[in-house]
Amino acid sequence: MTRVFNFSAGPAALPEPVLRQAADEMLDWHGSGMSVMEMSHRGKEFIAIHAEAETLLRKLLAVPANYKVLFMQGGAIGENAIVPMNLLRGKAGADYIDTGEWSKKSIKEAQKYCKVNVAASAKDGGYTRVPPRETWKLDPNAAYVHICANETIGGVEYHWTPDVGAVPLVADMSSDILSRPIDVSKYALIYGGAQKNIGPAGLTIVIVRDDLIGQAHPLTPSAFDYKQQADNDSMLNTPPTYAIYIAGLVFKWIEMQGGLAAMEIHNRKKAALLYDYLDQSKFFTSPVAREDRSLMNVPFKLRDESLDEAFLKGAQSRGMVQLKGHRSVGGMRASIYNAMPIDGVRALVVYMKEFEAQHG
Amino acid sequence: MTRVFNFSAGPAALPEPVLRQAADEMLDWHGSGMSVMEMSHRGKEFIAIHAEAETLLRKLLAVPANYKVLFMQGGAIGENAIVPMNLLRGKAGADYIDTGEWSKKSIKEAQKYCKVNVAASAKDGGYTRVPPRETWKLDPNAAYVHICANETIGGVEYHWTPDVGAVPLVADMSSDILSRPIDVSKYALIYGGAQKNIGPAGLTIVIVRDDLIGQAHPLTPSAFDYKQQADNDSMLNTPPTYAIYIAGLVFKWIEMQGGLAAMEIHNRKKAALLYDYLDQSKFFTSPVAREDRSLMNVPFKLRDESLDEAFLKGAQSRGMVQLKGHRSVGGMRASIYNAMPIDGVRALVVYMKEFEAQHG
Repeated sequence: MTRVFNFSAGPAALPEPVLRQAADEMLDWHGSGMSVMEMSHRGKEFIAIHAEAETLLRKLLAVPANYKVLFMQGGAIGENAIVPMNLLRGKAGADYIDTGEWSKKSIKEAQKYCKVNVAASAKDGGYTRVPPRETWKLDPNAAYVHICANETIGGVEYHWTPDVGAVPLVADMSSDILSRPIDVSKYALIYGGAQKNIGPAGLTIVIVRDDLIGQAHPLTPSAFDYKQQADNDSMLNTPPTYAIYIAGLVFKWIEMQGGLAAMEIHNRKKAALLYDYLDQSKFFTSPVAREDRSLMNVPFKLRDESLDEAFLKGAQSRGMVQLKGHRSVGGMRASIYNAMPIDGVRALVVYMKEFEAQHG
Repeated sequence: MTRVFNFSAGPAALPEPVLRQAADEMLDWHGSGMSVMEMSHRGKEFIAIHAEAETLLRKLLAVPANYKVLFMQGGAIGENAIVPMNLLRGKAGADYIDTGEWSKKSIKEAQKYCKVNVAASAKDGGYTRVPPRETWKLDPNAAYVHICANETIGGVEYHWTPDVGAVPLVADMSSDILSRPIDVSKYALIYGGAQKNIGPAGLTIVIVRDDLIGQAHPLTPSAFDYKQQADNDSMLNTPPTYAIYIAGLVFKWIEMQGGLAAMEIHNRKKAALLYDYLDQSKFFTSPVAREDRSLMNVPFKLRDESLDEAFLKGAQSRGMVQLKGHRSVGGMRASIYNAMPIDGVRALVVYMKEFEAQHG
């Protein structure tokens, strides 16, 4: 068996020890005689798995006691609707900051439910930076301010938490959650699909301040009503049990690595290797403003795009896969989430140097 | 390793060969160097897995070409909202047949979106039968007629397909889909959570006639708009990829057993073993009318309910778990889905005979 270096933007590489444990426990979890996949979500075995996953996540992120942690379904695209359905609370509009493809998706979906005020947009600069806070035109009556903490496609990431006063701050952290410590108390709601730093696709994490829930729009499906889910420990409907189990193993793995502070060091090292090389290369370029570059998703371009295919083919033959950029922006993208070992990034840089020497 | 006989109502037992294959392939699917959990949903590997799962499901159920097969999220409780959001098509009301707990949940949720006409109810008889078709008071202007094909809690199952004329027939088949052949063309929409006969919780199957989609309520989240999902091959949002992979392995396993005709024989044999014993027992009873008894979920009661705990404890010590009935009805329940081997049911009947001899 040869494992590849998987640079996929999501679903993405998982820590190998997690996969080994999942394989070992597939037919019999801790002597229960069952796979976790087969367990009743109301049984004592799964309730323990679920509770441990929540405890670990709360500990990793230091989630304050007045926040609910929900394990839901539907992904970030689901949340793009579920957030306004739950958080508008009778208000007419919400503020959105537009930093790229995922912001645009969030905005488009929210427009079904309310008046969206795009308080700032990075469109003019081709979505290569986060608009500075002082340029934001916030509405003091907005139900909330929505940001995409890390644009998975554009590779633009907030390295600061915006102060938006008393208006609740909502962040789509799908692609950078658990990559570094954050101050949860500065956010009203954090959401993310699991399939980058957490676990399998099909699980969605929602961390929400408890005073904001309980006023969902009357047409909100019960399964997506935060209050109903919170009141039922995320078990109003059958939760994605196996995904929660894997997430719990990943949380444990992160804890064993030293928690989020250690993850940040690991992730900064990996990103620096790649960006430092890109910045001195005469063949590859990074389109993103230095101060807003993502530690998770590193888009880059070849000087001559007719060599894109050759580059991808050579990478594949060296065991490096999923480096093709998103179809909306082209070029390349290396997604280097928590589970990407530094050796994977080293191997990529070595290959890029060779490629540049050959074609540059 | 000792595997138990798992009588859970869902999530439920899966075929052991499926779990073995999943364990074997956990770190490296078919030489890809990746777990299926790690694969981009847009990559060629997962696209092949997804396409094969759909092809197998279509073949098993002989799904006509004018039906879409969607792999979604949210479970049956999600669908209780998503169905009216998609299928009302501007109409004011829908007909629901009330056969028990799951019907009641569906009705309660639908009432958010429309006027619900409960066209027939089995409430008066304590939810122990399907109301005969001739008693149904259908509204010819209803957007659809909704049935719960198998009440997982009450153990009441339709062994016939209601003729409801030109009005679309919608069936929640969460707990009996793939247990026997059905004529899909008699239904407008079939939905079900995967966690009984299909695979892990977190995957929801929707089979819908294509002329009915495309008129969703404007507030329907895009992730739950059948037309948008159909137009994107169920990949408008990242689908629950690992659950789809396991479902595909289960579909393959069913095919290897001889398809749904063979499943029906297998399931009828298992159910007969248990019901035949219950009907001659002086200690155990089945509450459900004979002609409406579920082949999947067999609720039964002990003559003396003070022995319930002793019965469950004895079962556990013999490797038979999750026999406790749902808290809303009490007693016992043996869920004997496709993956329950006949030896599991034989072991249960042997134990019940012993218990009766000892306590009867």
